Amino acid sequence: MKLMRTTAPESVLELIKKHFQPLEAETIPLEEAAGRVLAEAVCAGADIPGFHRSTVDGFALWARESFGAQEGLPAIFEYGGEIPMGRPAPELQRGQCYLIHTGGMLPPGADAVAMLEYTALLNKQVQLFRSVAPGENVIHKGEDLRRGEEALPAGKKLQAQELGLLASLGAAAVKVSRLPLMGLLSSGDELVPHGTASLPPGKIRDSNTLSLASLGQKYGAGVLVGDILTDSFPVFLEKSRELLNRCDFLVLSGGSSVGSRDFTARTMEALGPPGLLVEGVSIKPGKPTLLANSRGKPVLGLPGHPISALIVFSLFGEAILRRLSGREAEPFRPSVRAVLLRNLPSPGGQTEYVRVKLAQTDGRITAAPVFGRSGILSTLTAANGFLIIPAGTEGLVEGETVEVFLWE
Amino acid sequence: MKLMRTTAPESVLELIKKHFQPLEAETIPLEEAAGRVLAEAVCAGADIPGFHRSTVDGFALWARESFGAQEGLPAIFEYGGEIPMGRPAPELQRGQCYLIHTGGMLPPGADAVAMLEYTALLNKQVQLFRSVAPGENVIHKGEDLRRGEEALPAGKKLQAQELGLLASLGAAAVKVSRLPLMGLLSSGDELVPHGTASLPPGKIRDSNTLSLASLGQKYGAGVLVGDILTDSFPVFLEKSRELLNRCDFLVLSGGSSVGSRDFTARTMEALGPPGLLVEGVSIKPGKPTLLANSRGKPVLGLPGHPISALIVFSLFGEAILRRLSGREAEPFRPSVRAVLLRNLPSPGGQTEYVRVKLAQTDGRITAAPVFGRSGILSTLTAANGFLIIPAGTEGLVEGETVEVFLWE
Repeated sequence: MKLMRTTAPESVLELIKKHFQPLEAETIPLEEAAGRVLAEAVCAGADIPGFHRSTVDGFALWARESFGAQEGLPAIFEYGGEIPMGRPAPELQRGQCYLIHTGGMLPPGADAVAMLEYTALLNKQVQLFRSVAPGENVIHKGEDLRRGEEALPAGKKLQAQELGLLASLGAAAVKVSRLPLMGLLSSGDELVPHGTASLPPGKIRDSNTLSLASLGQKYGAGVLVGDILTDSFPVFLEKSRELLNRCDFLVLSGGSSVGSRDFTARTMEALGPPGLLVEGVSIKPGKPTLLANSRGKPVLGLPGHPISALIVFSLFGEAILRRLSGREAEPFRPSVRAVLLRNLPSPGGQTEYVRVKLAQTDGRITAAPVFGRSGILSTLTAANGFLIIPAGTEGLVEGETVEVFLWE
Repeated sequence: MKLMRTTAPESVLELIKKHFQPLEAETIPLEEAAGRVLAEAVCAGADIPGFHRSTVDGFALWARESFGAQEGLPAIFEYGGEIPMGRPAPELQRGQCYLIHTGGMLPPGADAVAMLEYTALLNKQVQLFRSVAPGENVIHKGEDLRRGEEALPAGKKLQAQELGLLASLGAAAVKVSRLPLMGLLSSGDELVPHGTASLPPGKIRDSNTLSLASLGQKYGAGVLVGDILTDSFPVFLEKSRELLNRCDFLVLSGGSSVGSRDFTARTMEALGPPGLLVEGVSIKPGKPTLLANSRGKPVLGLPGHPISALIVFSLFGEAILRRLSGREAEPFRPSVRAVLLRNLPSPGGQTEYVRVKLAQTDGRITAAPVFGRSGILSTLTAANGFLIIPAGTEGLVEGETVEVFLWE
């Protein structure tokens, strides 16, 4: 048998970064920008806020006139009236103060706000029982962002808080990387479309297409699904070429037999130049993973087993879509810490992904490995996360605290 | 000043569960079910797999005829031919074996598969150099799921792996809880729509609507956005009633002044029965949070500050949407462990949410608290996560390892 030349998973990630580039930018309305990635930095077009604002409900005044005020010796101000929200404030005269609400505009001449609880309003006079420092309870014009200052860098994914910041800047449209379009081809003579009601003998329903399409969308791709390929090299090549022409990234979810894998590898090589970059990865499961470059477009060949296919796609499919959309890798990966319920020896030459079921028992979180032979689908949903045994280690020991990553 | 009666955050979550019920179910095509929640359990309609399958490439045979085989003394089989993928296999005769691919259907009469590497095919004869146990390298009919067996429970969120399992079962449509429709109203005389190019004096752009709409969609809601309300009780009540009639859940993103908060509270009480359930929560930030029940529909009143509004919505808005869509709370919450870079004292009476910036320095992950006065928007995007100081503790100490939750 021909031995597979395997690449370490870290090297696969480097190859992805080296061989593929972010897609071109497009300008879209801010309302449609959730989840998209900025193609260029956004700067503030004006000072934010555009005026001195109060951060509390209270009285706007000139701080110097409050100095020395205390419980038994209040400072006295003439009450000028209420500053309505969203309106320009009248100018503050010496000895005056104005009632102001949180977010209200300070009157010209005022430099601080005294909180309501330290004051008393009586007969058009306001008594203040504490001195107030200049700038107290005030956000100054431009304190949040100065005109021209960078508000968000290129490569930033636009989530709720970024959208809020852009909205406050008045950005009606944003320049983002185009959404990658991912093509998806399943292959195998044994497969029938998943909607098939009654199965002919020897056939099974295609489950990978729907799983991978939903993951692709989750990772920010549009998805184009092609036909199920029959096990024939000319069919593989023609259909792959055709779909790759219409998209930015092609995923081949191959059959699991050696022959079918061979078609996939030959097809991916023929789609070059430069062709195949990776013909096996030192991870378990997921070793028979293929990666090719077809004139700048990535092509990913997944292992046939559904579990391996999902794990591999969540590693490398995600990295490819991230790269195409110009987003930097998230450097921090959250995990749940749990007590491992049994020994997990590892041969050590490959990075292992072990599915586990987390449970809360007696006030501690435990992780029980879920074993299931490849091809068994029901174990797919029995695990709620996985742990990683790095290459070059001997495995994990029962009772050890391990980091479990949840299925995203 | 009137003191606020506050409720503990855990009690708010219990009130949500007690007062509100999952929405009715609907049946949708499987292709549109990603992210939806099963309204009833799904059982297998037939045995999965529907036939004995090989898990390797090899020769299908009757195991008993391999017993005793070894390197120097191979068992000899007559080569019957290749079993094409996706076709019913011919019956195995005594002394025969068939070439079979991974996922192929075992011939009736065969009970095991010998892996290719232990065999040699020569002149229509197969030599086997190892004995094979009955059942070896075979998934039996119904081994994955028996007909009638529960494949997925009610309340399960349909992610990639669940969709794959349902596809393999041939489920063309699934019964899921209806998608909640969330109404969103911002209020405040100082607000103008976020698309406003040039700001009149004293005005600011509404940033909450866009942020909250994107979070609502992320948590699985359809979103209806109403007009910005002016600070007037009759306007609040009429517009709230109107929008609540058209949706399942109403969010009021109030102004931050005491008066504006008062309108929101009165409106929420008037929307009953039973009206207000919560008139303040013992969390920081987020204390001025309101929750009401309007004839079975939840109404959430958010604090006016954008940062507080986002934190509160990600806690209680998420819990409400989860409840309405019938999904159980995720019991495990992944976090990043980091070294805290400064002391964080806490008064102890409330649960505190502190925004932090994670960084990787000298091989360790550090968390630096991000302080920003309320109203400062740019700090919204400076933090990449937050940590929680539980009520009843004195705070956290510099150098301590803390759990940081990433912004979702």
